Amino acid sequence: MTGHTRKHKVAVVGSGNWGSTIAKIIAENTNEHPDLFDKEVRMWVFDEDIEIPESSKHHSKLGGQKRKLTEVINQVHENVKYLPDIALPDNVMADPDLKSTVKDATLLVFNLPHQFIGKTLDGIAGHILPYARAISCIKGVDVSDGTVTLHSELIMERLGIYCGALSGANIAPEVAAEKFCETTIGYDVPPMDLKQQDDSAEANLIKIDEQRQCKAKPTHVRLTPVPPELPHVGAELLETLFARPYFHVHHVRDVAGVALGGALKNIIALASGFVAGKGWGENAKAAIMRVGVLEMVKFGRTWFPKSVEERTFTEESAGMADLVSSCNAGRNYRSACHAVEQGVSVKEIEEKELNGQKLQGTSTAYDIYEFLEKQGKLKEFPLFVAVHDILEGTAKVEDLPALIGGRKKIEG
Amino acid sequence: MTGHTRKHKVAVVGSGNWGSTIAKIIAENTNEHPDLFDKEVRMWVFDEDIEIPESSKHHSKLGGQKRKLTEVINQVHENVKYLPDIALPDNVMADPDLKSTVKDATLLVFNLPHQFIGKTLDGIAGHILPYARAISCIKGVDVSDGTVTLHSELIMERLGIYCGALSGANIAPEVAAEKFCETTIGYDVPPMDLKQQDDSAEANLIKIDEQRQCKAKPTHVRLTPVPPELPHVGAELLETLFARPYFHVHHVRDVAGVALGGALKNIIALASGFVAGKGWGENAKAAIMRVGVLEMVKFGRTWFPKSVEERTFTEESAGMADLVSSCNAGRNYRSACHAVEQGVSVKEIEEKELNGQKLQGTSTAYDIYEFLEKQGKLKEFPLFVAVHDILEGTAKVEDLPALIGGRKKIEG
Repeated sequence: MTGHTRKHKVAVVGSGNWGSTIAKIIAENTNEHPDLFDKEVRMWVFDEDIEIPESSKHHSKLGGQKRKLTEVINQVHENVKYLPDIALPDNVMADPDLKSTVKDATLLVFNLPHQFIGKTLDGIAGHILPYARAISCIKGVDVSDGTVTLHSELIMERLGIYCGALSGANIAPEVAAEKFCETTIGYDVPPMDLKQQDDSAEANLIKIDEQRQCKAKPTHVRLTPVPPELPHVGAELLETLFARPYFHVHHVRDVAGVALGGALKNIIALASGFVAGKGWGENAKAAIMRVGVLEMVKFGRTWFPKSVEERTFTEESAGMADLVSSCNAGRNYRSACHAVEQGVSVKEIEEKELNGQKLQGTSTAYDIYEFLEKQGKLKEFPLFVAVHDILEGTAKVEDLPALIGGRKKIEG
Repeated sequence: MTGHTRKHKVAVVGSGNWGSTIAKIIAENTNEHPDLFDKEVRMWVFDEDIEIPESSKHHSKLGGQKRKLTEVINQVHENVKYLPDIALPDNVMADPDLKSTVKDATLLVFNLPHQFIGKTLDGIAGHILPYARAISCIKGVDVSDGTVTLHSELIMERLGIYCGALSGANIAPEVAAEKFCETTIGYDVPPMDLKQQDDSAEANLIKIDEQRQCKAKPTHVRLTPVPPELPHVGAELLETLFARPYFHVHHVRDVAGVALGGALKNIIALASGFVAGKGWGENAKAAIMRVGVLEMVKFGRTWFPKSVEERTFTEESAGMADLVSSCNAGRNYRSACHAVEQGVSVKEIEEKELNGQKLQGTSTAYDIYEFLEKQGKLKEFPLFVAVHDILEGTAKVEDLPALIGGRKKIEG
């Protein structure tokens, strides 16, 4: 990490509660490591007019005014709409212009709801440094046409830059309040960044899907190496950028496992909510989590056999820890629990309690079911299938124990 | 499992809430499988005089009377003292006499507090069938003189019979109420039971500790094979004996992993309570569980390298699921949480809220600390050590994140 003459410049694309929290963490670290990073962290904000409540603690400055969210963030150093009451370091700069946010960035951190990623990448493509590197904090995976695509892969394909993933047991308001937690960064340094002087065409090609069992043909992406005057982008640099005393970072090379864990756990959290809603208690929730881990492991082993490591699911924050916190307290868990308690469908809870917002878990459950059906593997993932069937109304929560296995038939 | 001319007879040694629950499960299954098992399940009860409250639902029969607990259990088919309001099958027979309980049993199930195991084995030794087989449901391990001994090993040594282990996310009242859960049975069929006709002296020897790294010399036990007229004692028979629609059983050969999981999780549950008491939320609890799993895995790998399988900790009910339920709701968790909330020591909580009863987790934390110290391995188990130090008052809960790791020092 020595010998560089330039510094990295970081941009955060997205400014919800998790995006703002990650911007806060990064800005704390760029402040502490001026040798490696430009201090300023630019954060792209989808701008909107907001009215500052009279009761705001910023009342004396802004109370009762109608202002642009970006202006307010830059003036009071707080995302008053999406992360209220949390002070952001003053080196976080909100920027309403996507292109200006990313144009000089050597490190791009994507942290926005997955439904906006396509349009956002359209706005960025062609306007970034060709040797930038990226981290995706976007939960979920894209499942369509019998293929699972990670958001990191989507970013690589669309922008032509290498992208890793960050995920873990990271309920945003707790992290923002600097309560202790851990996260996992999946980043497999691309070959051209390991031999910095070799920029032959061959060395710069990366086959995104060569290890995928479920994609018709691998996608080739030509990457530009990170220039030697910039600090090497690897585990150490990423740890320096993301780790805080209250936010422990573990690095793994398994990007797919990190992304899959963050997606599949939402299906399992629904099942945990179902049994909690029945009042079945802690044993039952723990059983659901255990069976869930097994299906995550099997999913990875079946469709990502060369890239996924089982221990990402069983031993990393992006795996079992994220699963545990989601199955104990996440939004999918709570909504499923309420649905069963009130004797209504999860759909009704989405309409009633979430203003029609869709839960991540329900769409993932349907997507994964469709994928498993196309792959002819429904029988091998009884928990994922049971959650889908309960959502569909073709199975009942009471059936869950029998559906997820239990005793084999014993011949006397 | 065919060709047998005799049936197994089961005795349960112990009758607390977990012992009575296991007796209930077993009696349900001996009822359903009269081809394999004698219907009657004898349960040893440490007898005591009890007074039936006037308000008891058994009032018309027994209210206000002073009676022997065993008599009451056999009359009303309920352990009114330790598992009230749960109907026991009428083929559970409470027996105050230890020797009479075990004398005809071909299958012994030990389920009593660990502090009573030594004296109980004294009362049994020499009074059982030499070819009986046993399952230990006793949580914890015995740590002394720099050695870790499993209760199953203690039973093998003292009684000269093979013993496996049963453990899982099994909070007793929930299981007794037939709420769904899972458990793990560790049972490694001894060689002499696999080749039933070979009863040479050599084939019947079992070296209990040949795979142990921390015991001075292995203990040899001479076992008597299960006679061929009895059904073979293996995974299928044990599943038939323990599995219920609400109690799923998974069999593994790794007895040590099953026993260690049930012991070590109590240390981790204290840590989970500490961070919960601070109000650090779900992310922090999940982080503690994750680090806890890693230390369980390392403990098994270090001292039981040939017998323990890592996936017992990461994928079985006796591992991660038991850990999760204990870290969410177990007694060690709750007491540690109360201690931190009230700003007092765990010891004070033991005295105040548990009538001076000792928590399993505190004694295990001290035992394991002493063991690690003797083995010169304190530095490799930072979470176990931190819990000990917090109990001792030499570390604070606030130190926990730094103590269990986090960021390595980065050279700029």
